[in-house]
Amino acid sequence: MTGRVPLAPGFSQRLDATGTTLWLTGLPGAGKSTIAEALCAHLEQMGTACVHLDGDDLRRGLNSDLDFTREGRSEAVRRAGEVAIVAARSGLFVVVSLVSPFRSDRIAVQRRHAEEGVDFVEVWVSTPMEVCEARDPKGLYARARSGAMVGMTGVDDPYEPPESPDLELFADGCSVGSLVRVLLDHLLLRGTAAVPVE
Amino acid sequence: MTGRVPLAPGFSQRLDATGTTLWLTGLPGAGKSTIAEALCAHLEQMGTACVHLDGDDLRRGLNSDLDFTREGRSEAVRRAGEVAIVAARSGLFVVVSLVSPFRSDRIAVQRRHAEEGVDFVEVWVSTPMEVCEARDPKGLYARARSGAMVGMTGVDDPYEPPESPDLELFADGCSVGSLVRVLLDHLLLRGTAAVPVE
Repeated sequence: MTGRVPLAPGFSQRLDATGTTLWLTGLPGAGKSTIAEALCAHLEQMGTACVHLDGDDLRRGLNSDLDFTREGRSEAVRRAGEVAIVAARSGLFVVVSLVSPFRSDRIAVQRRHAEEGVDFVEVWVSTPMEVCEARDPKGLYARARSGAMVGMTGVDDPYEPPESPDLELFADGCSVGSLVRVLLDHLLLRGTAAVPVE
Repeated sequence: MTGRVPLAPGFSQRLDATGTTLWLTGLPGAGKSTIAEALCAHLEQMGTACVHLDGDDLRRGLNSDLDFTREGRSEAVRRAGEVAIVAARSGLFVVVSLVSPFRSDRIAVQRRHAEEGVDFVEVWVSTPMEVCEARDPKGLYARARSGAMVGMTGVDDPYEPPESPDLELFADGCSVGSLVRVLLDHLLLRGTAAVPVE
């Protein structure tokens, strides 16, 4: 991939020549996918081309050959990171929503982004476990508690929070709109080209 | 991935809501990457957001864990196909340049595109082996002939041409510009939304 951006007049400044990946990590049910969708929708209304890579979606396609062992999870994270790099280097704003429970896997993705000259923004969606479990949008916590499922992150598989995320999103009790605003403000302060000053 | 397209005024009609993958298959040195780059550059000048997935590039990232055995090649093709689906479903015009030597692998990718409702255009860049070998842009044929490399498609590994490609590109002796024109005409006739009538 060489950096390629849509070149329509007035569009190029809305795209990040060096590329950006915004990576949402957190427990299942933390709100990552919902926040990612809302952020992409907002950016697209401002004319920024986005790609949303969602962990569940990837599991149905690219990562359909992987299991939920430590190795399978690591490889899923590695692949998501590499796809993000390809897309970001095309000038797209990439949002990844993926549990990505292991610190070392996220650090490896961050290192690869640095090697490829792509900005990497790690965002921890830090919704507490009790809240995630009460929401349980996919019924995963219930299945894990009943024993119908093993290896559930947060229940019988570990989640290692980022030690120094670029941003921690306190998603509990906030509207999605206000969380998107927090993300946009962070990207603006960071000087991310994909986010125009309004 | 749900269909997401940049929504700037005047832009949406230049993007294909259902997504399109244009897949260039052919021998090493056939001209696939050069044609892909030129097509993307042209489409982007018309305001269409493109992603170019190149086999060599992917081998340095997403597919860096794969070898060049039958299985490694199949998996490389499968992954490129799945990434193309994700990108195309985001409304991007995706161009893949990949030797993809085995018919059954390409058919599997085509089937996955159909399942996901993404248009798949198979283009055979049918440059004859002698021409590819005379060009030898990466010195691969020389290395394979000298025995320094084994498993080279076209030399000691098979290439299975498409039986009924959507388009066969006779790239030998044609300018890149004229090949891009042939591709654009085909896409126009096909009604691909990413290609506006000029």
